Amino acid sequence: MTLEQRIAQSETRIFKAVFPSTTNHYDTLFGGTAMQLMDETAFITATRFSRQRMVTVSSNRIDFEKPIPSGTIIELHGKVDYIGNTSLKVQVDIYIEQMYSEFREKAISGEFTFVAIDENKQPVAILK
Amino acid sequence: MTLEQRIAQSETRIFKAVFPSTTNHYDTLFGGTAMQLMDETAFITATRFSRQRMVTVSSNRIDFEKPIPSGTIIELHGKVDYIGNTSLKVQVDIYIEQMYSEFREKAISGEFTFVAIDENKQPVAILK
Amino acid sequence: MTLEQRIAQSETRIFKAVFPSTTNHYDTLFGGTAMQLMDETAFITATRFSRQRMVTVSSNRIDFEKPIPSGTIIELHGKVDYIGNTSLKVQVDIYIEQMYSEFREKAISGEFTFVAIDENKQPVAILK
Amino acid sequence: MTLEQRIAQSETRIFKAVFPSTTNHYDTLFGGTAMQLMDETAFITATRFSRQRMVTVSSNRIDFEKPIPSGTIIELHGKVDYIGNTSLKVQVDIYIEQMYSEFREKAISGEFTFVAIDENKQPVAILK
Amino acid sequence: MTLEQRIAQSETRIFKAVFPSTTNHYDTLFGGTAMQLMDETAFITATRFSRQRMVTVSSNRIDFEKPIPSGTIIELHGKVDYIGNTSLKVQVDIYIEQMYSEFREKAISGEFTFVAIDENKQPVAILK
Amino acid sequence: MTLEQRIAQSETRIFKAVFPSTTNHYDTLFGGTAMQLMDETAFITATRFSRQRMVTVSSNRIDFEKPIPSGTIIELHGKVDYIGNTSLKVQVDIYIEQMYSEFREKAISGEFTFVAIDENKQPVAILK
Repeated sequence: MTLEQRIAQSETRIFKAVFPSTTNHYDTLFGGTAMQLMDETAFITATRFSRQRMVTVSSNRIDFEKPIPSGTIIELHGKVDYIGNTSLKVQVDIYIEQMYSEFREKAISGEFTFVAIDENKQPVAILK
Repeated sequence: MTLEQRIAQSETRIFKAVFPSTTNHYDTLFGGTAMQLMDETAFITATRFSRQRMVTVSSNRIDFEKPIPSGTIIELHGKVDYIGNTSLKVQVDIYIEQMYSEFREKAISGEFTFVAIDENKQPVAILK
Repeated sequence: MTLEQRIAQSETRIFKAVFPSTTNHYDTLFGGTAMQLMDETAFITATRFSRQRMVTVSSNRIDFEKPIPSGTIIELHGKVDYIGNTSLKVQVDIYIEQMYSEFREKAISGEFTFVAIDENKQPVAILK
Repeated sequence: MTLEQRIAQSETRIFKAVFPSTTNHYDTLFGGTAMQLMDETAFITATRFSRQRMVTVSSNRIDFEKPIPSGTIIELHGKVDYIGNTSLKVQVDIYIEQMYSEFREKAISGEFTFVAIDENKQPVAILK
Repeated sequence: MTLEQRIAQSETRIFKAVFPSTTNHYDTLFGGTAMQLMDETAFITATRFSRQRMVTVSSNRIDFEKPIPSGTIIELHGKVDYIGNTSLKVQVDIYIEQMYSEFREKAISGEFTFVAIDENKQPVAILK
Repeated sequence: MTLEQRIAQSETRIFKAVFPSTTNHYDTLFGGTAMQLMDETAFITATRFSRQRMVTVSSNRIDFEKPIPSGTIIELHGKVDYIGNTSLKVQVDIYIEQMYSEFREKAISGEFTFVAIDENKQPVAILK
């Protein structure tokens, strides 16, 4: 399997309906909840690419471009966009979809860095 | 857009890491949590297909074929598999993926029925 | 103790106030949350009847007869309604109660099948 | 309906399986989660007795007599035990049940005071 | 370090924004959620003071003086206010802050009693 | 009140006990949960400083320096560290404290940018 195939195969999607349990007092998705879902998406993408123990090292700049109203649907999409020796990076985007029209736009985007570790918590090669 | 294209475009996926907050005392995914995620997947699939107000009418038989251990990844997959006049059905399957191998198998499957309603809660045609 | 007494003694009730943390964008109880509570009720009923390790095998058809508005009270009621050799079935009903009147009606009903297993995950007799 | 009948009819029970999502680092039910469930039980009992808008005024002493281990079942039981002019009190007890034996004992008990209010938040008579 | 310094150093604060996931049908903070946060504050205060295994023995009277509306900020404050041989008490107050003015007032207050235990769950001295 | 006083007065702290409901399969605090708590801390700090409607624009690089084991206590600390015309920045640090020793160290740090908006969602001056 080529790297391109492994990247494609590990692309990870999470759809979610924006209900009151996830919103703030503006009746939009709470930013912290968005970040939690982005980290989960990134972690799953990284693990499915490497099939090794991955830990989050950092998130780079995350841009909150659009507020996400209650009563919409979001899709999170994670894709590996950099592969280093013992680390990799995952780009995560959140798209808003209206429920009752085809309108869809990007709302939030960010990038997360992970390292692969062995059972003694020492860094190991991503590609074996 | 053909019906086949609308069905394909509304296919909905949710990945999730199985962490302690979702498990029972056997250290496997709690069945009720699986059902909650399945209904959310089915609802989003139905809404994205019809772009109308959808309400759950019933779930058909749901089979829990395999327990889902803590520390695995699951993928829920929803796809419209029947379109009636004012109702539609969505098939939802849950797959387990090991974190550190490519092994993957189906764990739970079920089907959900939804009806489309207007603002007065009266049934309306799925396909306008 | 007769079977009838064991069935009566294992009847299980869960009351819950329907607050915003459990509702969808229609301001009614999210169907997936109802299913999660039904499976928990069924599991507790099955365990209290058999006093053995029980695992969910399947849910049969679940009918969502009435939407459950925010600001109401629900009661879930579970009762064993079939006893096989290594499996049993639990009927679960959800009733809505208005907060400020005595009005009460059935909203959702379903049936769950469980098997009893030993420590090696092999089926064992329900009635010892 | 007599007062005794109203008290009996408003008795409220909540069963719950103690899973990891509710436990602390001692692997027992977190005390704060127990208190949250007790207040919910008390509020539902008070509302079902009075069928009026009830607000919590205070909880009296709550005794944590026994720790509640993960992997057990609890039953919360609420019952009106005092009726004043504009207030009432609800006694709430939590019982532990072992899953695989009939052993059952009281673990936590407390009492909650509520007042009935009208739409302008003024106290009103409990018994009309 | 004097006792006064230890008490000051173990004072514990938790700020929280009151969003829909924590509110009841009156659109105010659910009393049970307030109690859960108070117990968490008290437990952390007691542990940080004693640096020993602490378990909740009881809560004394908790007064709900003011309702806490959605869209406000709360601060919980915990402070040791009694030190016995094997037990201690923690006073917990909740303050409401308006988001868009400096107005702040006390809303709920209570006191929690903890005992220190060793690994065999026997009481041990608070001050060693 | 000087700017320095306003910055000091709006410093915001959140203590939290790391229980199983917040951990991943490594038995450490899930990174996404840490980010959610950091955004809540930053939002409350920004709002308490400006007393205006604040929305998250971006998070800068967040460094996960140390894993946070289950059974520890964390303190989040937020402080305004930049004030622009219509935006401000909040530094958020997470410290780990051992429960049974005085050991404490910084585990995660990051910075969040907010803008102040009026009721029409137009940017307004931070300092009026």
